Amino acid sequence: MSAQVKYTLDETQIPKDWYNIVADLPSPPPTVLHPGTKQPVGPSDLEPLFPMELILQEVATERAIEIPEPVRDIFRLWRPSPLIRARRLEKLLDTPAKIYFKYEGVSPAGSHKPNSAVPQAWFNKQAGTKKLTTETGAGQWGSSLAFAGSLFDIDVTVYQVRCSYDQKPYRRALMETYGARCVSSPSTETESGRAALKENPDTPGSLGIAISEAVEVAAKNPDVKYALGSVLNHVMLHQTIIGQEAIKQFELAGDDPDVIIACAGGGSNFAGLAFPFLGLQLRGGRKRRVIAVEPAACPSLSRGKYAYDYGDTAHLTPLMKMHTLGSTFIPPGFHSGGLRYHGMGPLVSHVYELGLIEARACEQIACFEAGVQFARAEGIVPAPESTHAVRCAIDEALRCKAEGKAETICFNLSGHGHFDMGAYINYFAGKLVDVHYDAGELAMALSLLPAVAAE
Amino acid sequence: MSAQVKYTLDETQIPKDWYNIVADLPSPPPTVLHPGTKQPVGPSDLEPLFPMELILQEVATERAIEIPEPVRDIFRLWRPSPLIRARRLEKLLDTPAKIYFKYEGVSPAGSHKPNSAVPQAWFNKQAGTKKLTTETGAGQWGSSLAFAGSLFDIDVTVYQVRCSYDQKPYRRALMETYGARCVSSPSTETESGRAALKENPDTPGSLGIAISEAVEVAAKNPDVKYALGSVLNHVMLHQTIIGQEAIKQFELAGDDPDVIIACAGGGSNFAGLAFPFLGLQLRGGRKRRVIAVEPAACPSLSRGKYAYDYGDTAHLTPLMKMHTLGSTFIPPGFHSGGLRYHGMGPLVSHVYELGLIEARACEQIACFEAGVQFARAEGIVPAPESTHAVRCAIDEALRCKAEGKAETICFNLSGHGHFDMGAYINYFAGKLVDVHYDAGELAMALSLLPAVAAE
Repeated sequence: MSAQVKYTLDETQIPKDWYNIVADLPSPPPTVLHPGTKQPVGPSDLEPLFPMELILQEVATERAIEIPEPVRDIFRLWRPSPLIRARRLEKLLDTPAKIYFKYEGVSPAGSHKPNSAVPQAWFNKQAGTKKLTTETGAGQWGSSLAFAGSLFDIDVTVYQVRCSYDQKPYRRALMETYGARCVSSPSTETESGRAALKENPDTPGSLGIAISEAVEVAAKNPDVKYALGSVLNHVMLHQTIIGQEAIKQFELAGDDPDVIIACAGGGSNFAGLAFPFLGLQLRGGRKRRVIAVEPAACPSLSRGKYAYDYGDTAHLTPLMKMHTLGSTFIPPGFHSGGLRYHGMGPLVSHVYELGLIEARACEQIACFEAGVQFARAEGIVPAPESTHAVRCAIDEALRCKAEGKAETICFNLSGHGHFDMGAYINYFAGKLVDVHYDAGELAMALSLLPAVAAE
Repeated sequence: MSAQVKYTLDETQIPKDWYNIVADLPSPPPTVLHPGTKQPVGPSDLEPLFPMELILQEVATERAIEIPEPVRDIFRLWRPSPLIRARRLEKLLDTPAKIYFKYEGVSPAGSHKPNSAVPQAWFNKQAGTKKLTTETGAGQWGSSLAFAGSLFDIDVTVYQVRCSYDQKPYRRALMETYGARCVSSPSTETESGRAALKENPDTPGSLGIAISEAVEVAAKNPDVKYALGSVLNHVMLHQTIIGQEAIKQFELAGDDPDVIIACAGGGSNFAGLAFPFLGLQLRGGRKRRVIAVEPAACPSLSRGKYAYDYGDTAHLTPLMKMHTLGSTFIPPGFHSGGLRYHGMGPLVSHVYELGLIEARACEQIACFEAGVQFARAEGIVPAPESTHAVRCAIDEALRCKAEGKAETICFNLSGHGHFDMGAYINYFAGKLVDVHYDAGELAMALSLLPAVAAE
């Protein structure tokens, strides 16, 4: 009963460098292409959108990139985040498996997203940026960038996917409390938004459309830069502090995970936990199972095509090679807005192609069942996105039980669900259904993928 | 820039005992009286409501009471809570003062309340209790007892003050996620509730009425016990782990607070931080200023009478000597539901009468201004109740600036405001007003205080 459950590090143990998995991969990820010329982009092509330091991180090949001290200083507010042994859940499942979770909900915005929002805001500040635009689905990223903007006195405008904007007034209020401006997307403020509204005035919006709006504003205004909360290499890089801390915490615990699990939309919380462990393996360490969990309604790794595609709906972003459902694919509405994206981050797609990780798709209701089971055992109500990782961890623990194996499972609890209780209300009211995409629409979107000679 | 901001303890440093200030006070607090006979109550009088272990804690005189190991085991999920130096806020205020806050929002329910909910549920479980009733104003206590009930498999019914029930569906959803049943109070389920509805069908409810309902159900059903989230001695006792941890953390920081601040409704988060420091003083240590911050709309310490009064509206509870606005006083509606109570905990009232602490009343708008300023500087959005402590801490830091004094200020950030963003929405929309009680109603309520010969 009284065995240790929480493995904490003191703030001197916040990682001093980000870990860049590119340095350890057997082959580099495919290059990014210019949307017009379809030739490889150079750093200068990205300058309208990002400060040069972030562009250099995007294409970096060195293993370790130093975290600036002012960024670590802000991380001290909530990092290192705890690694917690879910002993009550283990007991409830009557499994011989040991279940640990890394809890990122302790950040001010309630998720892992500030791990990248803070350095992005800081590098922008150093480059003289006064205004940032971004998009948000669930609201986790938007509120994190709003928080980071307030610390560095940068104006932040967030294009929030309409169905999220309407369903989650509290998320919007959080962004406004941090001083950001929130706009329902598609909006009438941009060409991309007006085009989307013209095509379908009743659209629930999508991350793809919201990205188009935010990118458009930055591209057209020299004093505005853009920030993205997932997908890109530098975001994956920033999140690797999660896995680096977890490795130290497992040493403290005298344990070592056999299975590593995280939900994956664009892939950043997944990469954050998984890449440092994969790095150990790539440098000669033992092999672990690493599972990316997707929503069945938007399964880019499991059902998408590995191909060059745009990151947004209006085709303003560079072309990235990734697992994609097609940039014209509008995922059906479901309660994990952070996982409602047509593509998967290029680095995550690349390690999937290399056979280093597995993918699994889960249905919505089964995820909420797992979320409630977890909340009643461990006290923390997971964000809808994070329930995908919980579902998979419970399923793996039950497999261990069936097989009589005492494996060690570690999952990333990427955020709490305090702003998502509307989804839990629907779940308890029996109003939640398992949402599926239209196979014809998916086929159509995949048929519209851009032709790229380089492939 | 890079000086330490967060003082963490490892889980072995969770206090092993609760601290009972009664052992160190120059005089004992006045005894509690039976509501019928108006004679001192004995332990057996309280048995219909509470398990004997909690009753013994209520009247305990020893300084240290051991925390059961299974309770400490659950505390490990989030304790010790961090002590954080608010360096960005200091800089923003340009004050020579040092500002620290103890952050209790890291608990699964988002406030300090689980510190008492968990031991109350545990002692009930040991005594064989299968069902618990309670009341909740802001929802912090109700969700904490729901959480604790889920851990020990106890059915929990929460009478939630109607205006809170209507305004905060997410709080209700959180309680239901933990498996509790939530009832809008006044309800038709109890005599007390029906009487209140008969008197005023449109009543917003009050903690006093909700307590009556929960107590009535426990008193009438032998298999049901009652749990209270503040006011009583054993609740103050449970919360003292906050101040005990803070004392150790100030040793780590090489600092020592000159001013200690917490908001006070029933008084439990205030007592939790303040009593261990007062204990040092009572045992010969130095004197510190200790400030209890109340809402101007419900200022029991500042404007109430120190007299015997009931804890509830229907007069089912014992009579306690406390600073009270009168048990028939219905506080006006404002956004800090946790501070909307007619009385102050007897132990807090007693130390106020002994001159050991100060009281200060703050207006609602000024509190939200402070809350937003704090959120933009330190990232954490405070619960409306906690903004009262933030307001006072900022005012003290500005006083230090005016006086050129480098004092050390410590306040209790008792909870986060993620479930209270509706209040922030009103604040930003300019819809928030400073609420005042009706002086005539207060005078009437005070004139109706029960006559007690013992006074």
